[in-house]
Amino acid sequence: MSDRAHELALAEAFAGAPDGRPTQRMPVVRVRSGDAEAASDQLAAEEPLEIRLDSAPVAVTMRTPAPGEDVELAVGFLAGEAIVAGADVARVVECRAEAGEGGAVDVRLRPGTAPAPGWQRSFYATSSCGICGKASIDAVRVAADRLPSGPSVSLATIQALPDALRAAQRVFERTGGLHAAGLFTAAGELLVVREDVGRHNAVDKAIGRLALDGRLPLPDLVLQVSGRASFEIVQKAAVARIPIVAAVSAPSSLAVELADELGMTLIGFSRPGGFNVYAGAERVDGLATGPRG
Amino acid sequence: MSDRAHELALAEAFAGAPDGRPTQRMPVVRVRSGDAEAASDQLAAEEPLEIRLDSAPVAVTMRTPAPGEDVELAVGFLAGEAIVAGADVARVVECRAEAGEGGAVDVRLRPGTAPAPGWQRSFYATSSCGICGKASIDAVRVAADRLPSGPSVSLATIQALPDALRAAQRVFERTGGLHAAGLFTAAGELLVVREDVGRHNAVDKAIGRLALDGRLPLPDLVLQVSGRASFEIVQKAAVARIPIVAAVSAPSSLAVELADELGMTLIGFSRPGGFNVYAGAERVDGLATGPRG
Repeated sequence: MSDRAHELALAEAFAGAPDGRPTQRMPVVRVRSGDAEAASDQLAAEEPLEIRLDSAPVAVTMRTPAPGEDVELAVGFLAGEAIVAGADVARVVECRAEAGEGGAVDVRLRPGTAPAPGWQRSFYATSSCGICGKASIDAVRVAADRLPSGPSVSLATIQALPDALRAAQRVFERTGGLHAAGLFTAAGELLVVREDVGRHNAVDKAIGRLALDGRLPLPDLVLQVSGRASFEIVQKAAVARIPIVAAVSAPSSLAVELADELGMTLIGFSRPGGFNVYAGAERVDGLATGPRG
Repeated sequence: MSDRAHELALAEAFAGAPDGRPTQRMPVVRVRSGDAEAASDQLAAEEPLEIRLDSAPVAVTMRTPAPGEDVELAVGFLAGEAIVAGADVARVVECRAEAGEGGAVDVRLRPGTAPAPGWQRSFYATSSCGICGKASIDAVRVAADRLPSGPSVSLATIQALPDALRAAQRVFERTGGLHAAGLFTAAGELLVVREDVGRHNAVDKAIGRLALDGRLPLPDLVLQVSGRASFEIVQKAAVARIPIVAAVSAPSSLAVELADELGMTLIGFSRPGGFNVYAGAERVDGLATGPRG
């Protein structure tokens, strides 16, 4: 390590990204092998977004802004929580503030349609939740029916998805700091990829895009995510009727239990050399059906 | 890829972990080079936990259960959101349900103490939030004063923290699926490490442990996290008065802005070969102070 004091002139000129940019260039001191230099870095932007439903506040999420993606995020979030059917959305009103201060989107429903009864329960823990753990799991569970069988997907397709997702991640290349979610056909064709500092947001955006395109439900698709598979990601897929979820990293125990209960296929540690199937192995060509499959 | 159908006898015997275990063994079909075999995997457990304050529900979080850590998580969460001062906690009542169904913890305050006024604002988006983005950032910002100068930390210490954190991660070794947060002295001594499926939960648990030990505030410590540095993680550190946050991966733009505004040191991409300093370079020995530093 060098003893000398490094004279670092950090520029202040980078502050203030334009609205809705997914990255922001910021000054940085780079330390390598004990030597330091002033430089700049592209970082993933993170800003709060308030999601409203017919003007009523629903949730505030920390998300990466990008043109058009707030609308996708809001619609995907409301659809994924089974609060709103994508077809019921009449329009989405965006409200943008100063850069860095976030924004709000208001999802307006068509006349004659209404959100699912009792939807507030998911976000507002109230005393009506009752006591103890059963209340907790009820607070986070969204009703979703068991998925029907199909489609089939080949080993080769599953193994190709992580690289395909990675290749489509435009922002990650610049920042190294974003989660991604991609929706693929069972033949491995990429339909949409979205990135966000929040794993769940990336999933909401991808599903939201197809909801806005009038394509929900999605019984023939595969959801590939860049990181781990949590309970909530599997649940979002179930509500959108996506039968296959693959994650580059590990699933949680509750994610596996939910996938198993709903007849979904859950794949983890999905990499070029192989993968693990935690539930629903019968959708993977060449794998026989076991008791959990 | 092999064409033969694989006969897989997936055991059902693994279901149902005892209460409060951070991992759960589950059956899996392992596919490697086109061949599949039935096996079992240790997965990180994920269950909902409802956090209450004097019996009032505050939040439900998806967390990894472990003996004693629900109490840490609840106290760390309430302290990190500046709702409760650690010293005001009289006792914490745990309520456990069936395995997989989660649980609840009720943090009880000492007589004569009270939570911070207006604390509900952070979790309940209400119409009083006003309009648009300014409301959003207000909804997620917690009041925290600028941190005083010090302590100093050496390049060598910073570079050693990720390996030290990794070495202390007991559950990750078995599951490959957990985030970690460690609190270190400025000399690099590990005081506490906690793991969780949720990044924020790991930070809450670590800070909560020291809060329960009566050690808050923590003006001499370094928080090292295993993944990215989000706005919320920097904010939790600020509220606990931890001046230095280091992340193995990238920070977000808002994390850098908050660290800069509060006079904190924020380090990203912290690895054995080097790291990036995004704010507060003056706390790192041998780096001169720049305009942002």
